[in-house]
Amino acid sequence: METLSVALGERSYPIFIGTDLLSLSNLYIPHIHGQQVCVVTNATIAPIYLDRLNACLNGFQLSSVVLADGEAYKNLTTLNEIFTTLLVEKHNRTATLIALGGGVVGDMTGFAAACYQRGVNFIQIPTTLLSMVDSSVGGKTGVNHAMGKNMIGAFYQPQAVIADISLLKTLPQREISAGIAEIIKYGLISDYEFFVWLEQNVELLMQGDEVALSYAVLRSCQNKAEVVAQDEHEGGIRAILNFGHTFGHAIETAQGYGNWLHGEAVGAGMAMAADLSMRRGDISKNDLDRIIQLLTRAHLPTKAPKDMTSEQFVELMGVDKKVLDGRLRLVLLESLGKAIVTSDIDKNLLMETFAACR
Amino acid sequence: METLSVALGERSYPIFIGTDLLSLSNLYIPHIHGQQVCVVTNATIAPIYLDRLNACLNGFQLSSVVLADGEAYKNLTTLNEIFTTLLVEKHNRTATLIALGGGVVGDMTGFAAACYQRGVNFIQIPTTLLSMVDSSVGGKTGVNHAMGKNMIGAFYQPQAVIADISLLKTLPQREISAGIAEIIKYGLISDYEFFVWLEQNVELLMQGDEVALSYAVLRSCQNKAEVVAQDEHEGGIRAILNFGHTFGHAIETAQGYGNWLHGEAVGAGMAMAADLSMRRGDISKNDLDRIIQLLTRAHLPTKAPKDMTSEQFVELMGVDKKVLDGRLRLVLLESLGKAIVTSDIDKNLLMETFAACR
Repeated sequence: METLSVALGERSYPIFIGTDLLSLSNLYIPHIHGQQVCVVTNATIAPIYLDRLNACLNGFQLSSVVLADGEAYKNLTTLNEIFTTLLVEKHNRTATLIALGGGVVGDMTGFAAACYQRGVNFIQIPTTLLSMVDSSVGGKTGVNHAMGKNMIGAFYQPQAVIADISLLKTLPQREISAGIAEIIKYGLISDYEFFVWLEQNVELLMQGDEVALSYAVLRSCQNKAEVVAQDEHEGGIRAILNFGHTFGHAIETAQGYGNWLHGEAVGAGMAMAADLSMRRGDISKNDLDRIIQLLTRAHLPTKAPKDMTSEQFVELMGVDKKVLDGRLRLVLLESLGKAIVTSDIDKNLLMETFAACR
Repeated sequence: METLSVALGERSYPIFIGTDLLSLSNLYIPHIHGQQVCVVTNATIAPIYLDRLNACLNGFQLSSVVLADGEAYKNLTTLNEIFTTLLVEKHNRTATLIALGGGVVGDMTGFAAACYQRGVNFIQIPTTLLSMVDSSVGGKTGVNHAMGKNMIGAFYQPQAVIADISLLKTLPQREISAGIAEIIKYGLISDYEFFVWLEQNVELLMQGDEVALSYAVLRSCQNKAEVVAQDEHEGGIRAILNFGHTFGHAIETAQGYGNWLHGEAVGAGMAMAADLSMRRGDISKNDLDRIIQLLTRAHLPTKAPKDMTSEQFVELMGVDKKVLDGRLRLVLLESLGKAIVTSDIDKNLLMETFAACR
């Protein structure tokens, strides 16, 4: 097992990464400070892992909330279900919430913890590769509004994150790929050495090799923790974590959320951002080919859907309005392994990328 | 005009207290950091003051939300109306929210600011005496849940508080009294000299004398700011601000919220807490008489409703359960002008207080 610390002063917390951690309750019980625990999970995860977790929490005043599974339920109405359970079960300010699930469960549980009685503790137990390397680290919590994703939320840090690689055994292959998209992102934006490691080991990740997965999760969390420690509230450098996401969000919006997995849209988005970086002369054609090849080996899309027009991208990314007053900011690659945030975007090159990446 | 600073490190902010401040936009415009402003108010206040405020905010991208008036609307559904307006008006992370109203508007606007895009700035312009001396200072924001008051919220500090005493001209007399209840509280819990001043000046406050009101608001905010600066998240000393509130909440719950004003329930609650303090031998009969007399001169109730039984108090304050395991904590008076928080409660004396104060 590896332990990583997210260095945020008095809000610092450990990330434990390894196999069969769910059973090692000695690991997380020290991070539960009161006598009351509420496990929040969803209808997909509950039948597989909830009883196992509950068995480890013997002795606590224990409750659980099983939410409907899916991004469509990440809203204030579902959040209120968590509050109702907490109140019915008479949980007080010393209660600890445990998020057992993927990004949606983690984001909602963290936000519920931030708001319940103006703040209680919480612990993340991510059950997807994507949430292990992305949403469970960094303290972004929240829900969607009908008019926009993640528009309502808080920066709120957990007491601990338990990344149990063994939980990934039950994860569908398509979601393994989606997680690898964010893993590749860290190689691209800040860790060339890790990118090379991924070129050598991506098939092991795809096969679910626990040693390779543990290493990839550790290295990803290290990269993310380093950025978050520098810029907890996304005032500056943290924006590089959005590499591929502006293009990706346009794809997700055009296709309707849920048709493409977030990681898949980020995969195609990173290919597009890399394409634009090459057109600007910052990375070579060979660099771009290596990126496309790695994404392909992870079974990730490297182009936007065929039926998406440049006009759609222009509209969904707000290019028209934003380029004119110079406010469209994109994360691009300065080199393989180094991202920059820039608002110096040549609209003609951007249109070439839209045309080329379909 | 007086300026008071709430000392909370990087979250410190000024409270401006004086007359005709709404028109002095130079006062609050420096605390608006972006170009976008959204004023949140309610249907009672909007017709009187919204146009005047908007006129002072010429040059900003301006929007407003007019909420239904009343505690019954302090919930997640109403909160979502604020988010919808912010999104419809394309307000971004640089937007500033302005709360123009009483405690309900202030609590909801503050919480909306805490959550919108994970946190935007806000300014408080309280329009009731109660919110000037209580809820607009200290950073407690939130909404009610069907199962409990203020169960969902955040500690979130404003950029500035504008206590414009002139706005109190339109406040109903009964709400002036309710505000004076919290003002008397500061005298009782931490400021004997102020208590004596109130004995000499309470009629001036009741008559709406602006000089007296300005002084009372200033002194109240000083007292509250000092406590909040010591204990922002209510881990200890801040609990003394709840003097009279445990009894008061029982009355509000028994009567149904809205039948008694919060300040009225706190008035009766303080009389009960003072009664118990006398029975414990901490204050004299003469002290108690002075408290009752001052509350009476402010037209505040000094007893619980006649039809409330001791059994109701026992149930609503959780006395049965809480006294047994020693967890009922009450704020009582050690002397006139000094509160203590204690869980050393003699149940017999408490029952005597229930019986005597009806």
